[in-house]
This record gives sequence, structure tokens and C-alpha cells, in this order.
Amino acid sequence: MVTRIVDLRSDTVTKPTEAMRAAMASAEVDDDVLGYDPTAFRLETEMAKTMGKDAALFVPSGTMGNLISVLVHCDVRGSEVILGDTCHINIFENGGIATIGGVHPRQVKNNDDGTMDIDLIEAAIRDPMGELFYPTTKLICLENTHANSGGRCLSVEYTDRVGELAKKHGLKLHIDGARIFNASVALGVPVDRLVQAADSVSVCLSKGIGAPVGSVIVGSKNFIAKARRLRKTLGGGMRQIGILCAAALVALQENVGKLESDHKKARLLAGNCHTVLDDSMRSPDGLNEVKGLRVDACSVETNMVFIDIEEGTKTRAEKICKYMEERGILVMQESSSRMRVVLHHQISASDVQYALSCFQQAVAVKGVQKEMGN
Amino acid sequence: MVTRIVDLRSDTVTKPTEAMRAAMASAEVDDDVLGYDPTAFRLETEMAKTMGKDAALFVPSGTMGNLISVLVHCDVRGSEVILGDTCHINIFENGGIATIGGVHPRQVKNNDDGTMDIDLIEAAIRDPMGELFYPTTKLICLENTHANSGGRCLSVEYTDRVGELAKKHGLKLHIDGARIFNASVALGVPVDRLVQAADSVSVCLSKGIGAPVGSVIVGSKNFIAKARRLRKTLGGGMRQIGILCAAALVALQENVGKLESDHKKARLLAGNCHTVLDDSMRSPDGLNEVKGLRVDACSVETNMVFIDIEEGTKTRAEKICKYMEERGILVMQESSSRMRVVLHHQISASDVQYALSCFQQAVAVKGVQKEMGN
Amino acid sequence: MVTRIVDLRSDTVTKPTEAMRAAMASAEVDDDVLGYDPTAFRLETEMAKTMGKDAALFVPSGTMGNLISVLVHCDVRGSEVILGDTCHINIFENGGIATIGGVHPRQVKNNDDGTMDIDLIEAAIRDPMGELFYPTTKLICLENTHANSGGRCLSVEYTDRVGELAKKHGLKLHIDGARIFNASVALGVPVDRLVQAADSVSVCLSKGIGAPVGSVIVGSKNFIAKARRLRKTLGGGMRQIGILCAAALVALQENVGKLESDHKKARLLAGNCHTVLDDSMRSPDGLNEVKGLRVDACSVETNMVFIDIEEGTKTRAEKICKYMEERGILVMQESSSRMRVVLHHQISASDVQYALSCFQQAVAVKGVQKEMGN
Amino acid sequence: MVTRIVDLRSDTVTKPTEAMRAAMASAEVDDDVLGYDPTAFRLETEMAKTMGKDAALFVPSGTMGNLISVLVHCDVRGSEVILGDTCHINIFENGGIATIGGVHPRQVKNNDDGTMDIDLIEAAIRDPMGELFYPTTKLICLENTHANSGGRCLSVEYTDRVGELAKKHGLKLHIDGARIFNASVALGVPVDRLVQAADSVSVCLSKGIGAPVGSVIVGSKNFIAKARRLRKTLGGGMRQIGILCAAALVALQENVGKLESDHKKARLLAGNCHTVLDDSMRSPDGLNEVKGLRVDACSVETNMVFIDIEEGTKTRAEKICKYMEERGILVMQESSSRMRVVLHHQISASDVQYALSCFQQAVAVKGVQKEMGN
Repeated sequence: MVTRIVDLRSDTVTKPTEAMRAAMASAEVDDDVLGYDPTAFRLETEMAKTMGKDAALFVPSGTMGNLISVLVHCDVRGSEVILGDTCHINIFENGGIATIGGVHPRQVKNNDDGTMDIDLIEAAIRDPMGELFYPTTKLICLENTHANSGGRCLSVEYTDRVGELAKKHGLKLHIDGARIFNASVALGVPVDRLVQAADSVSVCLSKGIGAPVGSVIVGSKNFIAKARRLRKTLGGGMRQIGILCAAALVALQENVGKLESDHKKARLLAGNCHTVLDDSMRSPDGLNEVKGLRVDACSVETNMVFIDIEEGTKTRAEKICKYMEERGILVMQESSSRMRVVLHHQISASDVQYALSCFQQAVAVKGVQKEMGN
Repeated sequence: MVTRIVDLRSDTVTKPTEAMRAAMASAEVDDDVLGYDPTAFRLETEMAKTMGKDAALFVPSGTMGNLISVLVHCDVRGSEVILGDTCHINIFENGGIATIGGVHPRQVKNNDDGTMDIDLIEAAIRDPMGELFYPTTKLICLENTHANSGGRCLSVEYTDRVGELAKKHGLKLHIDGARIFNASVALGVPVDRLVQAADSVSVCLSKGIGAPVGSVIVGSKNFIAKARRLRKTLGGGMRQIGILCAAALVALQENVGKLESDHKKARLLAGNCHTVLDDSMRSPDGLNEVKGLRVDACSVETNMVFIDIEEGTKTRAEKICKYMEERGILVMQESSSRMRVVLHHQISASDVQYALSCFQQAVAVKGVQKEMGN
Repeated sequence: MVTRIVDLRSDTVTKPTEAMRAAMASAEVDDDVLGYDPTAFRLETEMAKTMGKDAALFVPSGTMGNLISVLVHCDVRGSEVILGDTCHINIFENGGIATIGGVHPRQVKNNDDGTMDIDLIEAAIRDPMGELFYPTTKLICLENTHANSGGRCLSVEYTDRVGELAKKHGLKLHIDGARIFNASVALGVPVDRLVQAADSVSVCLSKGIGAPVGSVIVGSKNFIAKARRLRKTLGGGMRQIGILCAAALVALQENVGKLESDHKKARLLAGNCHTVLDDSMRSPDGLNEVKGLRVDACSVETNMVFIDIEEGTKTRAEKICKYMEERGILVMQESSSRMRVVLHHQISASDVQYALSCFQQAVAVKGVQKEMGN
Repeated sequence: MVTRIVDLRSDTVTKPTEAMRAAMASAEVDDDVLGYDPTAFRLETEMAKTMGKDAALFVPSGTMGNLISVLVHCDVRGSEVILGDTCHINIFENGGIATIGGVHPRQVKNNDDGTMDIDLIEAAIRDPMGELFYPTTKLICLENTHANSGGRCLSVEYTDRVGELAKKHGLKLHIDGARIFNASVALGVPVDRLVQAADSVSVCLSKGIGAPVGSVIVGSKNFIAKARRLRKTLGGGMRQIGILCAAALVALQENVGKLESDHKKARLLAGNCHTVLDDSMRSPDGLNEVKGLRVDACSVETNMVFIDIEEGTKTRAEKICKYMEERGILVMQESSSRMRVVLHHQISASDVQYALSCFQQAVAVKGVQKEMGN
């Protein structure tokens, strides 16, 4: 019988801590639709300041944060947004910007590190002279960290360059910063500096930060005023949200400082990156040493590890996930040959060791099965 | 200095009770996007049963509940919904069903009691033979209680007749049941019976029921499956919502039974309805006895009172609202000559008396001001 | 055997005249998508001047003319248009402004004469202060002549008043002028004066004007530039349209002057309006003298006649239409008890007499059938 | 002074021939919105048969043909279409499928020959199990010939394979066949065989076929019924279109047989493809021998030639186009370093020689200018 669940599917799975629960139980609240809930106001004020923007708005989810941001920047019919072909908005948000918002997405190839080549972005910007045939480019979207690239970080230099490109062409820049604090910590760059070039950022409170529910979008006062209205239109206006905001305020205090440790646990699980030469930094063997699996330890920059099954290995992600689940370890299956694990503050170093050994067994067992003709 | 705020703007302004806060602090939760949060599951199961439907879904707001419901029933491009011209969806939800959902609204005149004439509804149904010119009617929407009619109730007979009409023409029936429990209590009809004819119902937990956040939509399993997906698209998929659902479960237990009392307080405030002859039921003087105001006490069926300023009275709603606010009483201004008050479980009988006397003074004072040339 | 078809279904059924065909055969043309087709340019220039606006654009249909106009004025997500509940856009254009354009329609009751009460329009304009809950009113639409009112005319005074109201609230005014030339002729007001208050007008060339295909929208240069782009988006950009525009130029010359006569034929068919006292204007007996039918001769202001079957008459529109069709007369069935006939330049006075006598027989025959138990 | 214009911008610029004009002048017509225009009916019947489909519909443009087709196949909110990143729908149709239709486009890399790799298409198909996060893939679009690849043809084998893939996943296949007759002729495959795998095809009549206006879409009876309705919604329903259809019927007879010759003229202009060894097929020197220009003669499969300015050449497309225009030759500028010419039946062999010599001079002149420091 499994006595402890090690949930590595995502950093969205964290449970509220005692401090968060206490904060929720005593939160000062009001009807946030009719006016400002005081605790929501406090959270929004703090987040605006942290991100270096003029205003902020609490929203139920990162998906709504991105949807609102894209729709506010693209408020005129016939708008186009440029985004990476593997970014979260393009892949995991139901195509809502088009199917709900009527915004045309122009997809540019994402590199392995989550960037898009600057010249490809520029080539995708529509010539305003051709407006009889073209939609109007209004917005560029980046995602930092870029989840589908294994949580890799976009540097401040890259972000600034995209921001300059946007300005040059009169476009806006939105950053899907669901895990922007992870990027900030990993890069050692203050988060407000990291998003300085952006006109808007959506930040998830319920991922690595560990709050139970919610995201915040930040931007100019005018942007947030329009966002507030659109939040109502979409049905994201809620009543006594001070409850949720109180938890988020605690989460910010408790967990931003723990992200560094999440990243270390991810590297511990992934194994040594051979480009790192300093022996004192060497981890013990990680997933990248497990036969049958392929893990690029050097690409682990934050709290995610992508685990591919090597070609020729006669097992599938589904089987490994099941094997792990039977041992209390929940892993996200991405495809028949890829799995994902995400570290967070409720995973301990010993959980990581346990997960590592289970992975080793999972592949080994399958190896035996393979010999037996399975 | 005001020491106590009597917030009569809406029944959405209630603060969570101690029991709700305790429930939130100890709620069992999980990531409701990746799977089912156990407390959300409990709430959804209970609400489905209460409403007599197969399945239920927690959503952040009544607006989202209605938006999702209309969009699920009208999922094919070119759909039309028939709804009342003063209903909440048509007036207060930013036109989202059209501006976000591309659904064409066909507006039928609402009578003073919130009904639409059955023959007007039928006349508005598009002839499928004319589909070259017409959108396709897919849905009829009712609102019970009907807020813009002062919270009046649609009877079960009326609802059933509209349901039969819908069936006859192959249409669906959605009920915006933001305050359906108020209607059920006022009519003395079990809530599941009252919505029996409906294919879907949205029910607010954060109005008279008193929960801090959220609504629930109910319907068939297939409807809810589609609704769950659309909730994600709109950004209404949230993580550890067991927190909010725990409060809602307590609220349902605590407050459904108090709605009757809310209605009594509304009648107390409004005054006697002269069609009620039994002297034992006579209230003391209410707003309908205040010179300069016009209140139809007989139309007060649930927890709302609309207060009109009589023509010729030289004051305006804005002034009265300000006067009241200075005395700690918050009233909703609907227009320059109309105000609205809504009763709820955190308003006491003495609050009602206090509000009544302040209203009397507010109009009297204005009279003086009038004489003084103001 | 029927030797001649008298097509009274609509004024859209006219066939191109010899002069139009000759003009099409010799029209100077070019690719109107890549630049300006010279004949299209000529038509657009002439129509802009005629309507007293700065610019014009040829479009394939009146429906596209209205759709483009509404969408250009309502180009920002969250816009609302105020229009009459029986107007063509609301009833006969598939709900396209909502289902394709995402514009929320606010429907105001149309009076019998095609007007909407000015105070009802004003009441429907959304308070910008309530934008958190309301869509944004951007546009008012009128229809002149108003087809569903039997082709009645909106006066220049009424139109101006609506224009003033629009200006006062910062709104635009669009006139669906499918039959604006009919209104101009009937009212004796120059067409540019009649639409002076409008920001845009759509004018059909293929109704009473008799061109085979097309409409024109007129407005400011900026409006038309946006309209040209949207025409391309919708697929209304066509190549050598000089062909069609050449026919339209001839049609304008040939047929505007004949509209007066169309109106006379309509009154001839309808019968005498008893409020007209001058005996010299008396027509012979018309449809309004036919037992079993009800025609309001006084409401016939232009080229349309609505024919209702009196209650108690035991026949139906379907039967009468069939009886007429067997005699070569095509009539539009509007409902089981209503028919519509529309006069145009290819209907002669003797056609009218023939149609009149067939109607008389049709009802009489049915009367006999009725006695015979049918 | 220029006495003759050689318009090579597109094959959309052809003028109607005498025979087409005569056909338009004598065409039998009727109101195609109220019923079927007989000549439209004839054209639609013929095109359905030619393309091997059950039904057909005349539409004002290829853009509307594609828009309607995509929207009919993707009629449910939340649909996604897979298409090539350089295809006409994605680049040149204003993003209408998203901005007007709310369909999410998933862009797959187009190879130089206009194909998309089959495995990339398959990888882009959304797993229905992930519908909580994904839109629903409904449609694959191909373009044959593929304009942005210089008019290259998709083979029947490739098309069939994509068709099989679509069937395997329950998807539809639409072919943007604006120039499908060019592909059919170039490949030597009957056009109905070439589109056999497609559920719908849009075919332009006003490109190489030479009709003044219009496209036709073909598909099943059910598809066309839905398309007819959507055509009305978009405003593409027109009245006496027999005029245009009569010209198109003549154009089909006159010009399909001339496409082969258009392709020869394109190869003549482009120059010899060195992979063609047979000396008897050698053309005289073409654009590919002009210093400063780069033309891939081997990629010229139909009636288009793309002309790139070699790096290092100190002139720009704008200047060359202007030089050509001054000599009566109209060329399409695609970018600062790319031009496009399209051959059609109104370009003679001597026009081609003239254009070729002008291009040679244009670059040479610029060379002189370059030496002179310009």
C-alpha cells in the first residue's frame, strides 16, 4: 500500500500550507466585482510593484491571464499575434485566442531553448502596406520559462531585444510568465528587470509559488482597466476573492525563496551536466545515467525535467507512468515516449531519491519483460 | 462616525461566516484541472442531486455559468438564443454571448413579472425553412428569480410551459437560476421540480446562499463534459478550488433555510401589500408609505425591493444614496430615479428599521433643501 | 399554359435591360482587387456624389453592405449596435453581425411606420460608466424604406433627430438604404439630404434600380478604406467588376426616374386610401376592397403591398400563392396569413390589373371551396 | 509613350474576351438568392461534374470560397484547421478564418514544393483525449498549385496520402484549388482524379481560366447546402449572377486548353532547367541567365516565375518594377528582393521576349548606376 504520494505531474498540484489556510480563515474580504476587495487590492498592489508595472489584476487562472492579455492588446477585429509554435498559448489553451477571441495566431518556430529567432519574428510581422490582404500584427508573445522546452529561461538580453523589435514596429510585447519567478531565480535577474520590456505579463500564483488558485496580470493602468472589463465578460469576476488572495500573499512570502531549491532538486533528479566541470558541483548519478532513458541534464535550468525513452527501448511511457503510480509517484505522460516531472516545494530531497530509484527499476523491469518477449 | 455598515447593494456582498472560514481552513483539496478536487466533486455531486440533474460543474461566477451554458447549447456557428429584453444575460453580462461567443440574441419583451408571453416566444422561433436568411434558434433562456423585475418568481407552471414549447421545437431551455433557491422558497416548490423542464441551470452560491465565490451549472453528463472544456477555454479552470467549494457546502447548509427570513425582511422594508387583506399579516409602515418614494410592495416576492422616486419629487437617487451612505447604509443606484436594495442573511431586522428611518429622513431632508432653493 | 410571368416576389427579380447588357458587353474593366477597376471607380465616384458622402465602395450584396458597415463602426471587441426589432439586419441577414462579427445587437421596438421611438433609442444607449457590465454602444441603425413595415419611409426630420441623438452620445448612424431612392422619391427629398445625418449608408442597385448585381456603401474616406479591407476579408473583393458596375450605371440612369411610377402601381394594386379626399386621385377598386383580404392602402408609401388574410377566411397564403403561380403571378408568402407583393419597372399597369383580378378570383374560389367543405 | 500594357502581375488581370462579353450580353438570368439562376445552375452543374463532386456553388471570390469551406467543415466552436505556413489562406486572406470565423489555424511548415511532410501533419493532429486543453482538429488544407512556392504542383499520390491520413483521423480535406486546372494540366492528371481525396475544393474562374469574376466550391450536397447558407451570411449571395456565370462557362471552354501554353511561356521566360537533358527542349536564354537575378528554372512547373535579386546586386525590386512599368510591363513586387510574374492567355510569346529583354536592361542599367555611385 502506498502511504505517501509524490506528485511530480506539475507544480500546480501543491496543497496550501498551514500558514495559507490560516490566512484564508482570517482574510479581510469584500465584493470584488462591486468594488475592490481589500486583500485583492493588497495582492494586486504588491504584484504590480514586484513586477515593476503600474497596475495588476487577479484572475482565476493563467489561461485567463493570457487570454485577457492577448485580447486586450488585440482589441480590434483583424489583429494578429506572433507566438512560438510550441508555446503554452498555442498548444494548451484550447486555441481560445482564436476560437473565443477571433485573434489570428502567427506561429514562429520555437528553438530548443524556448526562443524564436529574432529575424524570424521580424519576418512574420505583417507589412502594414499589405493590409488589404494581411491581418494587422499587434502583439508578440514570449513564454518565460518556456514549459515545452523543459522550463528553460529566456535571458534578459533576449527579452530586451524582442522588446526593442516590438517597439520598432509599434507592437506590444506580452510575456506568459506563468513561471517567471523561476526564470528570475535561475538567471539571477530581478523579476521586474526581466520583464522590463514587456507591456504585460501574466504570472501564476498556483504553480511554483504554491497558492491554491489564481494568476495575476500586470501592465499599464489603461491595460488593467480594459483587462478588468474583459475579466467580467469572460466570467472571471469573482466576489470575496480576498480568501484566495490572502493565500497568495502568504505563498509569495513563503515560496519564492524556495524556488532555488526546487531547481537543485530538478538537477539532482536529472543528473550531471557534463559541461559543468567543477567536481564540487557534481551530483550523484541521475536519470541521465539510466539505461533506456534519455535526459538532457544540461537543459535543466529550472524545476522541470523531460524524460524521453530511448529508441530501441521496448517500453512505453504509459507503462513507466503506471509502474511509478503504483509506487506513489505521479508523473505526467507527454506522449508515448516522453514523460515530464516538475519539482516544487512539497517534494523533498528524499522524494527525489525515491523517484530516481523507481525510474531505474521501472526501466529495468521492462527490460526483463522485453527479454521475456513482451 | 459610522460604526456599522449595512450593505444593501446586493446579496453578493455577504462575508463568509466563521463556519465557512473553518471549512476553508481544513478543506481537502487537489488540482481540479488535472483531475477532480475531492471537495469540488462533493459540491458538484450534491448540487446535481439537489437540482435533479445528472451532473454539475463549479464555475467562478454566474456570468461564466450563463456564458458557458449558452455557448454549449449554441455550439454551432449561426445559432440564436431567445431571451428576455431585461434579463441579466442581455443587460449585465457585457453582451458576452455575442461578443465572445458569436451567438445571436433574439430579445423578447419581458413583462413586469419577468415572464415573456409564450406566444411572443413562439413567434420569435425561426422557421427552419428560412435558414437561408435566418440564424438557427437553439435555446430559450429564462431567469428565475428575474432580477430586473425586482426578484419576482417564475412559477413552475410557466416554466413547464416554456419547456414544452422548447421541446416542441427541438430547442433547449436554460434557466439563469442565480437566485433559484429564493424562487423555490417563495413559491414553496422544491427546487428540482422548479427547474425540471430545464436542460441546464446556473445557480449562484455567492448571492443569497452566502458563499464567498462561485456558481454551479447543472445539466446532463454530456452538457457538463462540454461545459468543463469550455470552462478551461475561458480560463475558468482553477486548481485547489476545494477551498471555495468547502465554503459553498457550508453556505448551502447554513443559508438556504434563511432565505424565507430574507424575504420577510424585504416585505418589512417595502411595506404592506394592499391586496393582502388579513390584518394579522400587516407590517408596520414601510417604504411604500414614504412620501416622495414609490414602492410596489405587492411585487416584492423575494429579497429585493426597487425604490422609485416619484415624479415631482425634487431629489435624485444619487443624493439619497449619498445620504444613506453617510449613515452607513449602502444602496444600489439603478438610475437617476431608481434605487435597489437587496436583503440577505447578514442584515438584521433592526438594520431594516434603521434603513427605513434613514430613507424617510433622506427624502424629508431633500424636501427642506428644495424649499431652500436647492 | 402561362405565357408571361409577372414576378411580384421582390424588386430584386428584375432582368437587365438591353441597355444594361450592351453596357456590360463593352465595359472597360481591370482587376479591382489589385487596383481600381475604372468602371467601378466611376460608379463609386458617382454614388458618393449622389449620396453626398466622400467615398463609396461596390459590394456584392446589400447584406454584405450592412455587415461591413456595422463591423467597421463596431471594430472593437465588446461593441453593441441599436437597431429595430423587425429591421432587415435583425431578421433576414442570418444574424451575421453577431455570428460572424461578434457585435451585440440591442433590439428596440419598431413602430408600424418603421421608426423607433427616440426615447426608446436613447434609453437603450449604454451608460459608459457601467462598462464593467455593459457592452459599448457604438452605432444606431435605421432602415429606409423599412421593408418589414411595408416599405414605409422615414422622414428627413426623423432621420435628423436620430442623427442628433447619435452625435450627442458619440455614436455613429448607419442607414440600411437598400431602397433609399424609393424613400427619396416618395418623400420628395433629395437623397443626399435624406441621408445627411448618416455616417454610412448601404444602397442596393439590384432592387428597384434594376441592376443585376450589387450594392454600394458610402461614407467617409476612412470608413471606406476600412470597408475595402473588410470586403476582402469576407471574400467580397472581386476582379473585373466593371462588368457589373457598367450595368449599375445604366440602371441608375434608367430607373431612378421610374420609381414614382412603381409607387403608383403599388397604390393602384392596394386601392384607395380613405384619408385621401381628392376624388381626382381615386383609384379604381384595389385589393383593399377584396373580401377576405386585408390591405391597408394608406400605408402603401412606396413599392410594396402587404396582403393579410382576414381572420375567419378559410384559405391560407400558401393556397393563394399557388393559385396565383398557376396563372403566372409570383407572390412572396410571408407567413400562413400574409403575402407580399413588390412593384418594379418590369411590371406594367396591365400586369397590376391582371394580378388584382387573379387575387379576387383566388379568394373567391377558396370561398367556394370553403362552402364545399374544404 | 507606352502603347501596350503587358500585365504580368497575376493571372487575375485578364480581360473578358469578345465571346465572354457576348455571352454576358445574352445570358439567361434569374434571382439567384430567391431560387436558382439558370445559368448559375448550369455552371454549378458543370463544375460539379468536372471536379467529380456532387454539388457546386458559385461564390464571388477564391477568398470567400476558402473561407466558406473552412467554416463549414469547422462549424463547431473550438475547431482547428491544419494548413501550410506559407499557403494563401494563412498569408493572404486577412486571417479571416480566425478573425471572422473563430477557427484556430495550426501552421505546419511548407516545403519548397508546397507540400507539408506527412508526419508533421500527423504530429499536428490533436489527440482527442486532450480535449480539455486542445482545440479539435477538424480539417487539413492543401493548396494546389501552391502559389507561394512558385505555382508548384502537388501530385495525385501526395494528395491521396493526405486524404488517407485525414480519413484515418476522421478529418476533412479541403483543397484550395485556385489554380487546380494548372496543376491538372502540368501533371497530366484529370482534375477530378487530382482532387478525388478532397471533401471540398475551391476553384478560381478568374485566374488562368480568364473569367471576369468568381470562384466555385464543390463538395457533397450537404456541404454545399451549408455553404449556400454561409455565403448568404457573408453577403456573397447575389442576384442575376447568370451574367458572370455565362462568362465563366465560355472561359472554361476557351482557356483550360490554353494553360499548357501559359506554362510553356513561363518556362521560356525562366530559362532552361539544367536537369532537362534533351536538347530539343532547350529554350533560348531566360531570366536564369541574367546576371544579378536568381531564377530557379527547374521549379517552374506551371504559370509562375519567382525572380530573386542576387545578394550583392545593388538594385532593389522596387526599382526594377518601376523600370519595367515605364516600359509597359507590370510585375508584382513580393519583397525588396523578390518579384513575381504570372503568365496567362493574354500574354503572347513576343510579350515574353519583350519582358525578358526589359528585365535584362533593368538590371544592367542599375549596374551602371551602381558604378556611378548610386
